Formats: sequence, C-alpha cells, structure tokens
Amino acid sequence: MTSARSLDALFAPKGIAVVGASRNPAKLGSALARSLGGFAARGGHLALVNGRDDSMHPSMRDAADAGPVDLAMVCVPAAACAGVLAEAAGAGAGAAVVCGGGFAEAGGSGVGYQEELAAVVAETGIRLLGPNTSGFLAPHAGVTASFVPGVEQVRPGRVAVVAASGGVNHALSFLLTEAGHGVSLAVGLGNAVDVSAPDVLDHLADDPETAAVALHVESVADGPRLVDAVRRLSARRPVVALVVGRHDVGAFAASHTGALATSWRTTRAALAQAGAVLVDDERELVDAVGALAVARARPTRDPGVGVVTAQAGPGLLLLDDLRGRRARVPELAGATREVLATLLPPLTFQANPVDTGRPGPELGRVFHAVASDPQIDVVAGYALHEPDAVDLIAAARAGRVPDVPVVLGLGGTGDAVVQGRRDLLAAGIAVASDPRGVAAGIGALLADARAWARRSDAVVARQVPTGIGGAHDEDQAKGLLDRLGIVTVPRRVCASRAEAHAALAELGGPVAVKILDAAVLHKTEVGGVHLGIADPAQLDAALDRLAAIGADRYLVERMAPPGVDLVLGARRDPVFGPILLLGLGGTTAEALADVAIRLAPLAPGEAARMPAELAGHTLLDGWRGGPVLDPAELGRAASALGDLLVANPGLDEIEVNPLRLTPDGLVALDAVVLSRDPEEAADARPDQ
Amino acid sequence: MTSARSLDALFAPKGIAVVGASRNPAKLGSALARSLGGFAARGGHLALVNGRDDSMHPSMRDAADAGPVDLAMVCVPAAACAGVLAEAAGAGAGAAVVCGGGFAEAGGSGVGYQEELAAVVAETGIRLLGPNTSGFLAPHAGVTASFVPGVEQVRPGRVAVVAASGGVNHALSFLLTEAGHGVSLAVGLGNAVDVSAPDVLDHLADDPETAAVALHVESVADGPRLVDAVRRLSARRPVVALVVGRHDVGAFAASHTGALATSWRTTRAALAQAGAVLVDDERELVDAVGALAVARARPTRDPGVGVVTAQAGPGLLLLDDLRGRRARVPELAGATREVLATLLPPLTFQANPVDTGRPGPELGRVFHAVASDPQIDVVAGYALHEPDAVDLIAAARAGRVPDVPVVLGLGGTGDAVVQGRRDLLAAGIAVASDPRGVAAGIGALLADARAWARRSDAVVARQVPTGIGGAHDEDQAKGLLDRLGIVTVPRRVCASRAEAHAALAELGGPVAVKILDAAVLHKTEVGGVHLGIADPAQLDAALDRLAAIGADRYLVERMAPPGVDLVLGARRDPVFGPILLLGLGGTTAEALADVAIRLAPLAPGEAARMPAELAGHTLLDGWRGGPVLDPAELGRAASALGDLLVANPGLDEIEVNPLRLTPDGLVALDAVVLSRDPEEAADARPDQ
Repeated sequence: MTSARSLDALFAPKGIAVVGASRNPAKLGSALARSLGGFAARGGHLALVNGRDDSMHPSMRDAADAGPVDLAMVCVPAAACAGVLAEAAGAGAGAAVVCGGGFAEAGGSGVGYQEELAAVVAETGIRLLGPNTSGFLAPHAGVTASFVPGVEQVRPGRVAVVAASGGVNHALSFLLTEAGHGVSLAVGLGNAVDVSAPDVLDHLADDPETAAVALHVESVADGPRLVDAVRRLSARRPVVALVVGRHDVGAFAASHTGALATSWRTTRAALAQAGAVLVDDERELVDAVGALAVARARPTRDPGVGVVTAQAGPGLLLLDDLRGRRARVPELAGATREVLATLLPPLTFQANPVDTGRPGPELGRVFHAVASDPQIDVVAGYALHEPDAVDLIAAARAGRVPDVPVVLGLGGTGDAVVQGRRDLLAAGIAVASDPRGVAAGIGALLADARAWARRSDAVVARQVPTGIGGAHDEDQAKGLLDRLGIVTVPRRVCASRAEAHAALAELGGPVAVKILDAAVLHKTEVGGVHLGIADPAQLDAALDRLAAIGADRYLVERMAPPGVDLVLGARRDPVFGPILLLGLGGTTAEALADVAIRLAPLAPGEAARMPAELAGHTLLDGWRGGPVLDPAELGRAASALGDLLVANPGLDEIEVNPLRLTPDGLVALDAVVLSRDPEEAADARPDQ
Repeated sequence: MTSARSLDALFAPKGIAVVGASRNPAKLGSALARSLGGFAARGGHLALVNGRDDSMHPSMRDAADAGPVDLAMVCVPAAACAGVLAEAAGAGAGAAVVCGGGFAEAGGSGVGYQEELAAVVAETGIRLLGPNTSGFLAPHAGVTASFVPGVEQVRPGRVAVVAASGGVNHALSFLLTEAGHGVSLAVGLGNAVDVSAPDVLDHLADDPETAAVALHVESVADGPRLVDAVRRLSARRPVVALVVGRHDVGAFAASHTGALATSWRTTRAALAQAGAVLVDDERELVDAVGALAVARARPTRDPGVGVVTAQAGPGLLLLDDLRGRRARVPELAGATREVLATLLPPLTFQANPVDTGRPGPELGRVFHAVASDPQIDVVAGYALHEPDAVDLIAAARAGRVPDVPVVLGLGGTGDAVVQGRRDLLAAGIAVASDPRGVAAGIGALLADARAWARRSDAVVARQVPTGIGGAHDEDQAKGLLDRLGIVTVPRRVCASRAEAHAALAELGGPVAVKILDAAVLHKTEVGGVHLGIADPAQLDAALDRLAAIGADRYLVERMAPPGVDLVLGARRDPVFGPILLLGLGGTTAEALADVAIRLAPLAPGEAARMPAELAGHTLLDGWRGGPVLDPAELGRAASALGDLLVANPGLDEIEVNPLRLTPDGLVALDAVVLSRDPEEAADARPDQ
C-alpha cells in the first residue's frame, strides 16, 4: 500500500540533511551540499551530517534537533546505507534519497544491501528514492537534490519528468531548459526499491505546478499499477512516454538497474491505452511534452491539422512529416479559402497547406482564418525569423482561436530568435526551431486529443461464458467462438468414415477434413488437414491419410471463400495481464512482427481501432478489389475474446488463426484454446 | 553542356549589382542591399541599380563602368526579369540571381516569363540562380546574397548546403549555425532554370573550404546527371542527402517549384548507390553532415561502433538507437577489456557499451582503449557536463586514435556547455547534445564508411544476350534466364495433348501445366495455371480446362520444392533509367512496399546487399527452419538482369516472379518480358 503514503516529505521538504557530507569537492556529499545551497538560501533548513567532521552535525538526530529534517540525502557507501536510512527514519525524516550505486544492479553483495534498504522501508515507512540515482529537482521549492553541476540552471516551470534513470532525468531536464521550458519536478528513479514511477505519477496528479508529464520507462515491475497511475494522471494532465528497448539492449539494461526488460511493444500499447502519448526518442519527448505543457487540443476522434507556412520548402518538409504521422490535413472549407484569397497573393497555395509567400501584416488574419475553419483542430506553422516583414509573435497572438492550439516553428539563429521563441511560449504558443519539431509537437497534440476523446467510450458489460478450462479440440474451441458471436463455417464432428461421408453430403463440397484431437496443436504440420475435398473418392483418400496418422475423429467443414487472413488472439502477459493481439496472417507479417496490442478488457469501439495500426492495413481496405474490413465487426470479436480471457482464470490463451476477411465478413477458420491444468486454474481468480 | 561553365562569377564575385534596389526597407531590393553590406565593407564592389532613383546607378552598364560586376541580383517584377538578365549579360556579368516568384511555379503567364529567362541563358551563357529562391550565402567571400535577416550570423565554415528550396537552404544554415557549425556555401536552387543541383555539386568537388555537403532534394530533372555529380563529389567529400516526398505531398510540391515529384524510393536508392548518406529529416541532416564535416571513418564494409557512456540511462537510449540503425556494436576484445578493468570500478559494464560510472581522470584512457580495439572503427560517447569530475574535452582529446572518429554527446545547459561543445568541435571531435544526435552522427559515419568501401568493387563486364525485343512467351522468357545463368525448373513446350502427356511421363509428376501465350500476362487470373498434376487423369482434366480458355500450347514443368518466394525485376525508371527491384513475394510484402532498389548496371557484389535491406529479410535467413539465402547467388541474378536491360534498348522490363528460395538455391518459377514495339526499339540506343 505504498501508494497511499505521501511524497511531500521527499519533494517538498522543510529541511534536508546531507548524511556523509564532505569538504572534499570531488565527493558526492560535497557536490550535493553545494547543489542544495539554493534551498538554504531560500530559508530551508540544510543540515550537513558527518560523524568524523567536527564542523558538521555528528548524527541525523543532532541535525533534527537543530531544525526540521524531512529529507535525508544519504551519501555513504552502499554497505552503510541501510543503517543511515534507519537512523534517518528514527530521527523523524519522512523521506530519503540514496544516490550511490553498488546495489542490485551490481550483483554480489549489492543485492543484499538493497534488501536491507527494502527492509528498513517496510519497517519504518520512510519513503526512499533510489538507490542508484542522481536524485531529483523541484525548482519551485528550490530543491536541487542532485550532484550534477548546472542543475541550478533548470528553471521552475510546468513540465514534470519521471525517468527510470537519473542520467536520463538530467539529460531531459537540460534539453527542456534548452528548448525554453521550465520544470515542475524532475525525478530519476534508479533502482526504485520504494518510490516507483506510479508513486510519482500519482503525486503529480495533484500537483498544481505541473501541466504535462514526460515519462521515461526502462522496465515495468507492476504493469496494472503503472497503467492505473497513467490512466488517472492523463485524465488531468497529458503524459508523454518514451519506452526504451525497441531493439536488443537486454544485457546492458540488466547491468543498469538490475531489472529485466519488459516487452517494448506491450508496454507501449498499455501506456497508449491508458492515455499516454508515445514518442520514439528523447528529442520527440521534449517536443511533445513541451507542446502539451502549453496547450491541449480539445478531445477529438479524428482531429484536423491546418498548416500555415511562410516558406514553401520547409512547409513541404512539415507536410511530409505530418503525413508520416498519419495526421489528417484536410482541404480547407470554401468560406475559409474565400477569406484567404482576400489576404494572400493569388500565386500562393491556399488549400492547406497555406503558403503565405513572404509574410506581411496579414499573417495574423491568415492564422485566424485557418484556426477558425470547422475542420481544423490544431495549427502547425513555420516561418523564418523576418522581423522586417512581419511581427511573428503579434501575428500568432492575433491569430489565436480558443481551443485551437498552435505549434509554430521559428527558423533563425541568434539572440533575437531565441527571445522570439521564448515570447511565443510565454504567449501560450508552442514553439520549435525546425519543421520536425513542429510535426512532433502537432503529433503529440493529436494523439492526446484522440486519447482524451476515447475516454468517453463506455465499456459495456458483456455476458461471456465462464468456467472455461481444460483441453479444447477445434470443435470445442469453435463452439466457444459461436457463443461469443464470432462467425465460424458450418462444421460436423464425425467419429466414423460413414459420418464423414454423411457430412460431405449434407454440407456439399468442397469441404475441409481435419483431425479432431485437442492434443494436436499443429494439425497442418502432421498432415492432419485436407482441403478442397469435393467428392466421396477424394474424401476416402483424405480419410485414409488421416487414419495413417492415427486420427479416429474428424471435423468436416464447408470451405470458406478466399480472402485476407488475420490472426486474432487473447493471452496473458506476465507483466500486464490479459492482452489482445491482432496481426495479418502469413509468414511475412509474422517476420515483420506487424502486430497491434491492447490490454483486455477492451470496449469493441476501442478494439475497432486495432487494424488501422497494422503496417499492412491497406490489405484490409479492399486491396486489389478484395474484401473491405468492417472495423466494428473486428472490434466486437476482439473485445469478446478479451472479455472471455478476463472472465476465465483457467484460460491461458485463445487464438483464432486464421480469422479470414471474406466478402461476407470475418470467418474463423481455426481456433486454439490453451488452458492451465485444472489444479492451477482452481487457484486462480478472475482478473480485474 | 552547362556543367562545363564555371560558377565562380556566381559564388565568388568581385562585384555585385542589385538591380531594382530600393530605399523602402520592406522591399526585396532594399533587404538584399542591406545583406550585401558586408561584402562592400570587405572591399567588394557593390552597385545599386535603379533607373528611377537618382542616387543609384541608372543601368547595369553604368554600374559596370564604375567597377567589376560579375553578379547581378535581379529584384524586379517577373515580367521584367528577362530584360534585366539580358542587360546584365550585355554589361559583362557572368551570373545572376532572380529571387522573386511568379514563374513556372505560379502557372499562367509565369510559365512564359520562365521560358524567357531560359532563352536569355541559352543566348548569352550567363549563369542564372533561380528564379523563386531566397538566394545563397558564401560566408568565406563575405557574400550573403539573401534577403533573409540574420544570415550574417551564419559563420564561415566547412559545411556546404545545396537545397532545392531557398527556405530550406536558410533553415538548414541556421540549424547548422545553432549546432556550432559554419558554412562554406549555402545555395537554394528555386526553379533551377539554369543552375541545378549537379552544377553546384560539381562546383563543390573543387572547393577547398568544403568538408561535407548537405543535399536537399525535392524533385530530379535529370537522374543520371545528378547521380554522376554525387558519385564524383562523394569520392572526395561526404554528401548527406534528404529527399522530400516519402508521403503524398504532390499537389503542394507542384505548386512550390512547378516540378513533379520524383519517386522518393528510387531517388533515395540512386543517391545512396552514388555514395551519398541518406537521412530522414532535417535534424538528422544537420547531425550527419556536422559529424562528417569533422571526420570521416576509414572505408570499411562492416564498421564496428564502440560506445562509451558516463551515464547508463542515456547510454541505453544511445545503444537502442544505434541498434535501430543496424550499427554493429561488437563485444570488445579481451585485451581491451583487461585495460578497461584496470581503469574502471568492477561494478560497471565494460563489454561494449562501456559504462564508466561517474567519470574521472581515467576517461581519456577509457576512450583510447576503446578506440584502439581492432573491432572498433568509430566511437560514440555520452556524458553530462560535470567539470568537477572530469575535463571532458581534455579526455576526448587524450583518447583520440588516428582514423577512429568520435561523436560525443554532451548533455547540459548554459554557456559553459555551449562553449564545451564548440571546444570539442574545434578539437576535431563531432558533438551532439543528446543520444539521438550522437546516434545520427555515428549512423552517418558508418554509412559513409560503407559507401566508401564499396567504391573499390569493380564492375566486371559480362557477356549478355543482345538484340532482345519483341514478344516473349514464358518459355522464351525463361530461355533468357537460362542464358543469364538463372536457374529454372525443367520444362517442356507442348503443342498438343500428346506432347503434354509425353512431358509428364518424361519429367515425372507432379508437374505444373500452364498456358503458353506471350499475349497472356496474368496466366493465373484467367485459369491458365494448374499445379500439382500427378497423373495422366489429372493432366487431362487440366488440359480440358486450358482448352476452355483457348490454349493450344502448353508449358509443362516439374514442380519446384516449397520455399520463400521473391520478386526480382529490372525495369526503366523515367528519371533514372534502368533499375533493379527486389521484394518478397505475396500481398503483404507488396502492400508494405518492402522493396530494395538499385540503378543498373550493378556489380554482383553490390546487388548481393539488396536482400539485407528488406524489412522482411529474416524470412531469407532460415526462418522457422526454412532455406537460407546465399546473397551472392541473388546478387549474380540481379546483376545479370540489370546488364540485360542495359544492353538491350528494346527491352522495357523483365520480371522473375516468383523467384523461389529453395533448399537447393534460387529457382525462377515464372518470368515476364515486356518489350517496346519493334519500331520504337529500333530508334532506341543502349543505355550508358
């Protein structure tokens, strides 16, 4: 129940003790004491503790007697940290930071040192940040609890940073500073023995200084808890997440914090579903959280982007980038274009993008016209700094329309340009220095607006079968699908050759004839599937071959029409619990790992968005005259599979492969159900 | 033959006339005159020409009488430009710039104005930059021939910019300046009536001030000429290329310069093959060209990257990014690790990446040890600015090893950090402010080193059939493949049912039986292909069905073993000429447009690199126990197809689909040859 304990002693202390303070400037304790000088200068109680230095407090207790000490910065060797932590708790400190390394990430005796820290936390209730972190910054409170020089240049502001790593916390804080943003709170979690990302996210949900949150994730200890925290926070403040580990970085990652890497794809899917905006690198993280700290677009399912550029070439880069993010750049309404025609020379492109040509005093009205267009939810702009031609800040201010945020790229160099960017930010206009930065900011506004709009989707309780467990043959698995409303092809279970012939006669050819045996998972590989059986002679030949592999029960099915094969499944992720996976069939899609993932349970309307995420989604849109997917139908099927998994703890996995898109809709051609063994299932409880 | 005419009058003028100069500060002519003030201050002859202003020269002739005038900056309305251009040429100017728009990009009468400019160029030989460009910067010569304010802050340096668009030229120049780089020459081409990208690239090949070139491409007028220019230039100086138009930006692009967008994929493939380093956006362009302007790695086919980081978290971001670029980060040699073990605490990761922990004075020796490792060709570093702990610049200098460039990310903010980055650059160490920037710089060094190494691949002249043209049925097409050494399956051409039965008996079943008719391109779609024919009864049934679609000639082939299907083709690109395309078979690969492209002719060793570029290349590496591709075999086949197309102007396209990867190697299962009609072919001449 650590989440209930406040982090105020940690992030808003009245007094701080540096335990292991030092007069040697190269020592950690010395650097920390220097960094906290600003806190003392603002009247905070800063106590230096070192039992071997007469100029300092001999103990935490002594320091606490001299004034309030909420927070202990512990700068002693790893082996001594647990003792100091217990002493701090005994002296009344509510929180502590252990910066040093040499714990679980180092292996060996470090594992034990970390367990000792955890034991003190459990006994005393003290909140512990770290170990193995470079600390945190709370600039509004004047607390720069970090040994990294230059942190005092990180200004108070509206962006919070929650980073798995202390180094990344600092790197991001510095990048935000360079981009003109201030920080409300910046935390590096390190080994996260106690204070974890969800704790800090919960803390930020009530932090009035924070307008947007940058979240850096390396591994996830408790998936559902992280998802809950992001869901709660993102309802109030936008969250932008960078997840490390797209590629194989496991060995180095393990050496870093001692944690195993979590599935990158599943973590991303879970965070997005919880309402976070995903980014691919630290630059986009700064662009995205910087834009969202300035303004959020209104909740919209398919927001439109207006593009205004003073130079066509950079505008083209911007448009290309926006299209790559699947942003919708709609043609402007006739009325808007009439207004633009009165403002701009006839030579320029005015349909969207709007190319102003060399901009003049009309620029504010151009921005206003575009932002007022009913199709437009956010405006992306780019201009070189040309103060002779136009006062860009005044134009951007004059062009503002309520609830339609602007991200403006201001190209140029020198102090006037830097000041111009700051003025834009101060005026509530998000800013970037290049087209890519504009596109990244716009992409974040769009993703946030879409996620916000999705919150209104109610999850309708569905009646799904319960008590599912044990072995399922294909007929039983398809019986489950039938009960969920997922279409299967007409089929007959046959226990003899005579029944098989009767089924062929009844269903009409061609049919598929398959071995029916729950123990055979890979029917095709063992020669257990025969397709296109048109007449009794072919059926006899097929049955002979099935008999040869020991089959004594058969499934006879009408052949489905051709189409595009999908794979739809629900399974249990070890970190996040029940998840849904959708991919295209075939080895190419599999080799490309082109898959959409969601946590279950999931509303059908939400699940309907999964196909559009596939790289190969054009195959589902009537490719070469083929069938067109109804996303709602797919959504209902996916949602039902998820609900089934959630309601049946005895069920490990259900996979429909292939789920064929035909001109008549989706048809399940094969299904596999994997269950836990009955004893294990009896112990399990339903998820959620 | 414009390429032979020097651009010295344009880029290194002794005197400049601004025609249409103005005292109204908002006018183009006024802004240009202001920008060129620095040129005049350095003693250059700057003449202002305006027939309606008594304080200025009344004519070009008058300006030329007052001093040398090599370059005319033409600031008059579009309709008057051709006249002024002719006047300038008559007065002895060797070059002119037309900045204004209203030419082909605007349509209407603008098309005619542009044709008039072209006519004057053709008559007089004057070199013309533009129209529709914001000019150029030659900071070493003090020439800032641009009306954009702030250009005087672009410092002289070693990076050249060649941009399709004037706006992008300025945006890039400013971004380079912000990143600490100076510029040798920065050109925006605009409508490129005369001076084109190849002209400027040729000029730069002999420019001693230029160390690396940033090339921005929107469309390509003459593919072979651009490729030649890049090939020549990149042999001497690295070229980094950003091609716009990955996504659909056609309508806006056409409005911009009046040119149609060229195929993004083919343009990228052609530039890479010519030796350019490709990037995806303008930020990566700055990172890449900035790194390459400082240092080039030695030519290496598979260079190794050593990663040194002072903070594990940013190091993990860097490693993840490098892996995404398919950089090789090899485990360091035992000897290197022994040295590192003496320098670093035992807790840190030392295998590569090398995590130094908080860095100290040993950092220089760490860099040196990693750079000295025989596996390492470039070093990527990251550190927060911590001057208390280590003098990073001194360490980086001390750690240098000849021919092993370093790209170092320096995290932090404030003047000391900015100065630190400048000092690193001045010391010949490429620098970035975040892990992504480091990865982008390293990626560029690797791509350049690989391209450089490839230059040594000799193209061996091959004997290929010539005189190919006219219609080809499948047997004739496969006959061509046989002559090229591409394996086909045993086949028999049959003109009767009896011959088909004889072929089945001879080849043994199962066989494929297909309609043989050069006019039928899509045999399967019309029911012209029957597979797996095992016995005479099945053959008769198949022949009945072929007869029903009018077939009277058949191809009977032995069935190929199963495997992974590829598509390999050679065709003529309208811009670049003969090209090779390789993709995976199947609709998924097609929908994803997962294709590798090269210009032909191409050495087999070069073509052997194509499969590794496919997103689905893992399917060719023994996926699920399947066959493993021999890239050399694929390379020989692709190279042969390319040579065939080059040697046969009557041949439009040859496509092998599928080319099946089997356990016994590649087998062509079908082939289509498309030829021009004989009259057209007779007029065509061989390429290259």
